[in-house]
Amino acid sequence: MIKKISHIAIVVPKLEQATSFWAEALELNVSHQELVSDQGVSVAFIPVGESDIELLEPIDPTSGVARYLEKRGPGMHHICFEVDDMDATLARLKAANVPLINEEPTMSADGKKIAFVHPKGTNGVLVELYELPVTVQSTESGEDVRQRLREGLRDGRNIYTAGAKAFLSGIRHGRQPENT
Amino acid sequence: MIKKISHIAIVVPKLEQATSFWAEALELNVSHQELVSDQGVSVAFIPVGESDIELLEPIDPTSGVARYLEKRGPGMHHICFEVDDMDATLARLKAANVPLINEEPTMSADGKKIAFVHPKGTNGVLVELYELPVTVQSTESGEDVRQRLREGLRDGRNIYTAGAKAFLSGIRHGRQPENT
Repeated sequence: MIKKISHIAIVVPKLEQATSFWAEALELNVSHQELVSDQGVSVAFIPVGESDIELLEPIDPTSGVARYLEKRGPGMHHICFEVDDMDATLARLKAANVPLINEEPTMSADGKKIAFVHPKGTNGVLVELYELPVTVQSTESGEDVRQRLREGLRDGRNIYTAGAKAFLSGIRHGRQPENT
Repeated sequence: MIKKISHIAIVVPKLEQATSFWAEALELNVSHQELVSDQGVSVAFIPVGESDIELLEPIDPTSGVARYLEKRGPGMHHICFEVDDMDATLARLKAANVPLINEEPTMSADGKKIAFVHPKGTNGVLVELYELPVTVQSTESGEDVRQRLREGLRDGRNIYTAGAKAFLSGIRHGRQPENT
């Protein structure tokens, strides 16, 4: 059900300064950096084994991450698990009376299903859950997937379409909520 | 150099209550639980992919973990990376002027080299580094290793001796500090 730790997110004031420890000093590499405008953050991805360290720099002072940084200072922000079946996972958590921030998953631009569990049900830890599109092979690393999506964009294929196709393919293969 | 995330440690007031989310609701299993008297904590290990979630319950009110819980409440406490060569890693961090809690590694009862990096050099994150004894195969999971060590204890072999043997074996194979 839970496959692995997808990433650990760390809030930092400035990505450039933070990578001097999290990448250079640790001999790790920033695989990819992107602006997530709707969350008001700039993100650097640093693969470690099967997981990623995700450094988050708030670029919008009104964003949740900016308020977190102001209130608590830099540090670990959330842990994200990759699950194989988001609908089944959320159903199970609801049945166990675990408080959820997202009762229904949201869909990211690249076709991931995403939901957050409320820290009051997890001993104060913000927990994110990811389900990758069914077109993504579990043997691919996070960077493989991002690279393939970037290539897809360069090829003129639309990742929104890819996400929708993945979703529809899931339904065709009997993965709709009532069957899980 | 860094092989993977070994574990994410989470401070909780009571292990029994915490495992209702971190194990049962997430369909994960507590592989092992132990009392680490010299750190004043009771620890539950929950394997996830190649890593572990480690739940820490302070049992000594004067311990560092108890003070952390009192001051900051429950939540993520530290992240631990497995490194292949602790001496080389610490030398590299010193050269990069990263502040260390342990300038020299300490040796755990089961033969691991352990060192902590100071949060003031890591954007507020307490970072632990582990080097497993050279007798431990990298393909073994944390639980495999713990199981083998428990079996070793049952067989009357002493894990302290195993740690010392691993250390001496490392030296024999040219892994002493001046060669790294």
